[in-house]
Order: sequence, then C-alpha cells, then structure tokens
Amino acid sequence: MKVSELGEFGLIDLLDKIAQRSRDEQNPAWQQLLIGIGDDAAAWHSGSATQLVTVDSFIQDIHFSLAVSPWEEVGWKALAINLSDIAAMGGIPRYAVVSLALPETTEVEDITTLYRGMIELAEQTGVAIVGGDTCSAAQVMINITVLGSTQDGKDNILTRSGARAGDKIAVTGYLGAASAGWEILRRPDIKVKNIAALKKAFLHPLPRIAEGQLILKQGVRAAIDISDGLCSDLGHICRASRLGAIIEVDQIPVHPDVKANFSNKALELALSGGEDYELLFTGRAEVVNRIREISSCPITIIGEMTANKIGQVTLIDNRGNQLELKRGGWEHFKKTQN
Amino acid sequence: MKVSELGEFGLIDLLDKIAQRSRDEQNPAWQQLLIGIGDDAAAWHSGSATQLVTVDSFIQDIHFSLAVSPWEEVGWKALAINLSDIAAMGGIPRYAVVSLALPETTEVEDITTLYRGMIELAEQTGVAIVGGDTCSAAQVMINITVLGSTQDGKDNILTRSGARAGDKIAVTGYLGAASAGWEILRRPDIKVKNIAALKKAFLHPLPRIAEGQLILKQGVRAAIDISDGLCSDLGHICRASRLGAIIEVDQIPVHPDVKANFSNKALELALSGGEDYELLFTGRAEVVNRIREISSCPITIIGEMTANKIGQVTLIDNRGNQLELKRGGWEHFKKTQN
Repeated sequence: MKVSELGEFGLIDLLDKIAQRSRDEQNPAWQQLLIGIGDDAAAWHSGSATQLVTVDSFIQDIHFSLAVSPWEEVGWKALAINLSDIAAMGGIPRYAVVSLALPETTEVEDITTLYRGMIELAEQTGVAIVGGDTCSAAQVMINITVLGSTQDGKDNILTRSGARAGDKIAVTGYLGAASAGWEILRRPDIKVKNIAALKKAFLHPLPRIAEGQLILKQGVRAAIDISDGLCSDLGHICRASRLGAIIEVDQIPVHPDVKANFSNKALELALSGGEDYELLFTGRAEVVNRIREISSCPITIIGEMTANKIGQVTLIDNRGNQLELKRGGWEHFKKTQN
Repeated sequence: MKVSELGEFGLIDLLDKIAQRSRDEQNPAWQQLLIGIGDDAAAWHSGSATQLVTVDSFIQDIHFSLAVSPWEEVGWKALAINLSDIAAMGGIPRYAVVSLALPETTEVEDITTLYRGMIELAEQTGVAIVGGDTCSAAQVMINITVLGSTQDGKDNILTRSGARAGDKIAVTGYLGAASAGWEILRRPDIKVKNIAALKKAFLHPLPRIAEGQLILKQGVRAAIDISDGLCSDLGHICRASRLGAIIEVDQIPVHPDVKANFSNKALELALSGGEDYELLFTGRAEVVNRIREISSCPITIIGEMTANKIGQVTLIDNRGNQLELKRGGWEHFKKTQN
C-alpha cells in the first residue's frame, strides 16, 4: 500500500502503534511521559515542571507558495504554527530549533528575510532560537521544534482527551479568515472588499499563547488549535475523549469580512478551511462563561460534547435540522489536497 | 549572493548572528541558556537539570541513497546522528520527535521498516519516540529532534569551546571506516576484503553515548562528534576555544580494514572522510590517560591543543614535518559536495 492510500492520519496512527510497542515501563523516559504521539505536543514531567515539545514542517508548494507568501511571512508562519501547538497545550513556549533545507540557488538575502520574520515573532513571544541545521534540497523546507513548559502539578495541561460529556465547545476569535485569505491570494482576479485582514490572517497568524494559558488556569482541560479546520480538529477531540459533538452552525463566529464577501461559501470556509490557528476548547458552562468575561479575545460557545455518537461531529441549524458536512479538513497525502 | 556561494557554515554563522541580535537578557529563556547555536546541541538550565536539544535532517540523495541504504538502516542512522550530538555534550538522550516528509508513492511497508530501524536504536539507548508529523514531499526527509539532559551543576557539559592550551587531543574508536564503507557501497566493482565492518560503519553507526558521559564525569570539558571529518570537526573546537591544534598523523587510529584495503587513501579517509560518529575530545594528559584505562572503547591520543595558530589544525608526520591538508571535511552547499 502507498502512503497516499493510507492518508496522513492513518500513517500517524500506524507509526504511533509501532512507537507504543517500544514502550518500556522500566525506562525513566517512558515513566515520566504524560502525552506521547497524537496530541498537539508531547509532554513529560521533568523536575518541578512539565516539558512540552512540538515539531512541524513547513514545506514549499505543500504548506506555502513563494508565489503568494513573502519570505518574511514564510518565516513568521513557520514558527507561528508551532507556537500554536504549545498554546493548545496551555504552555509557555521557551526555545526553538530551526532546521532549514534550501535549494543551492536560494538568495542569502531571502533567507535572512525569512529569519527576520521568524525572529520578530520569537521576540514578541519570548522564544529564544537556540539551534538548528541547514542543508540543501530541491525545495525550501523549514522544520521547527519548539520546547515549552507548564507549571507542574495535577491537571496542568490541555489535551485532546480531556473533554467531558456536557462540556460546552468554544472557540477563540473568528473563523474562516485564513482560508478566505488563501482564496484571495491564489486568485488575484477575485472581487473582494477589505482584503487586508483576510490576507493577513493567512500569511501572519497570531498563535493564541496567552489564551491557552488563561483557559488552562481557569479550569479548561481539553483544547486543540484549529489548523486543519474546525470539524476536522473537533473530530480529534471527539476521538481522543471518546465523545461526540454537536455544533450549532449559526453560533459559529464567521469572520465578518468572510461573511461580507463569500456569502454562500463563508460557512464552509469557517467549518473546514483551516489555518485559522484559533483555539477550540471544551469546558463546563460556568468555566467557559468566566473565561468569556475576563478574556480580551472574543470567546464564542458553538456547541456541546455528547456521550453518544462517539467520534462524530454533528452540525445542526437553528431549527435543529442536521447539516451534512460536504468537505473534511485538509489532510495531506490525499489526492484532493490543496 | 546564493547560499551555495556562502556555504553551509557561512550560512549557519550568519543565522547565528541574526538570532543573537534578538537576545534579550530580561527573558528567562535567554537567561537560562547555556549553549545556543554553534555547538552539537543547545543547552539550558531547567530546575535541577540541564536540558539538551539537537536537530538533524537526514535527506534522500543528500545524506543517504536508497540505492545503497536499506530502509531499516536509514531509520537507524537518522536517529544515530542525533544521538551522537547528545553524546558529544556528555548527555543522556531521553525523548525524540520525528518529522517525516515522503513522496506519496512511498510504500507503507518501507516506512514501517524505517521506523523499525529507528526504534531498535531507541530501545537500545533508552529513548522514547513521543511525537512527530508527516507530510508529502518530492524526496524522503527525516528530521529528528532529540531531547536529553545532564546532571546540573558546575562544569556539567561538554562543549566545543571548553578546550585549553596544552590539552591532549583524543578520539574514541577507529577512523575512516564509515567513508571507506561509503566508497564500497557506491562502487560495487571495487576490490576489497572484509567489507562487512566497513559497510556497517557507514550504514549503522553506534553513537558513543556511554563514552560521552564517561569522559564528562572524568573531567573532560571539550568534545565534538566526528561527522564532517576529523580535521573539519577539530577545526570547530579550535575556533570555538580560540586555540590551534597539532595532530601527529602517525598516531591516528585508522581502522585496520581501511589500512588493509585503501593503502594510499587510508589516511585521507580517516582525516577527512567523516561520518564515523566517534567522539573527538581534549583534556589534561592525566585525565585522558585515566579514561584510557577505564574505558571499554579504545581511546587514542592523537595530538595537542596549542595557544598559537588559532583556528588552525596542523598535521605533522613522525619526523615533525608538516603535511598539507588536501581535502576538507564535507560541507553542504559547496559545489564539490558528495
């Protein structure tokens, strides 16, 4: 079987199973492990802290296109997607190591510009870039590992498996803007007003680091960042928590510029577009309501976790009618991928 | 300027300078940092331990060729080169995250075989593989980050900058075997006896983890692993420690099968071939002699660090005549690269 047939998530599941078989309870590394493969980051106890690590590749013509993304934004986003994973664990990002693969013909100036974008975000978020390697390759590939931590103690981390039946489902910010921005960037002929915010949402996402720490502190236990798309990422929480989810589509905070410009397609972009890097989390109604009051970022309740329909995300309209999900989140290795 | 003109080390130096400019002494991450870009691994204080992190890419047709390397050995070596960096810091490797980029047409079975090789080494060295990501790309790329630690305290780490004038220069094991193995693998017509050990040295290197910890415990402060080649890697120690080095070429422990088969070329393979993943370290004569007595691995003194000729590696024969270095270590982005 080819990896294209198995799909990205199928391959990750398979490799997870292989890695799990090597689990050795006599080994301190395994003993101290809290979270392995299958969450936004791995986590383990270390002294008085919980250590977090996450890695993501950002590859030319798979994850970004130099035809539409300036080098500075490529650097920014390559780091942002990793910081977003630490945010989804409620962690504090601290260190990053950067592995760059580049065609030999790449201009040095372009790489220093890429680094400038990356370092701008690192400075804003208190992250020290402390190492890496470089080598030549046919396409530009940026592979970043981010190390972070949370305060140690009981319930000290956000996971995909921490949701409970009856939890409200909430999201930070607005959805659909990044994928609308991508539509605009790749189709310059498209007629859209107020495109700056949408382009920026795609090129220059802001990882929700402060919000991740806030929701953890307020008692939230389950979260994920929206990278593949709301439905796809909520599906990860459903499977990991062994629950179902009901989403009231009219409650979804579709970005106003997306609503204004993509009338028919706006909801689809918000549900399945991905790359918004907002946080999706679940918690008791009183916990989520308290967060809504104190957070400087908009927090919207969009549905509820259910004990039945395990692993399924059900969409309903304001009359309680069920909607069909026409398009899943982005999955690499699928032949229909973007 | 193109990155090919600047070269790999030039690019790393440049990116290091850019990262250093973002250094912020008010930021706890920078305050706790011991070693940033420019050593085998980055290191920082964290609670009662020193944390280490290293990342290395292992890329098809740059670092390995599927024409000569079985998938299982690709997986083994991709992890081994990272563990070797932790060994060169005197650390204990604990966790690894694996980022895989693959052509969509790759067979799933080949990837599980690759993972088997990686996990075999992980199990032998007590490393837990705890995360990663996968995506599609034109060539197979394995990017591994290894997290490790050393006991905290003064002088708790091996660095490139820890050498002192008058230190003896020593190496573990034998040199030249890996690059001889590579010659044999890519030229099947070559007439060589006892090729098994040489091929294995190239395909299946053994990171010197126990030796790194032993030399640190015995008082060694400077080390590097031999990945680019003895002369090139010793050059890193010279520049980082602001010293020179004199190597007595007749003392170099050239692998016996390399001596037997590559008469004229044997010394060059040992000096510049690279990929042996032995440790090169410096220390006071009494420290190195004590290590020679207690180590189960051969330890050979090959020269001495000098206060003059800063940054230079000088080779002398047994009559004290200086030899010319004909070929540097492997450097990517150079047009002459392998």
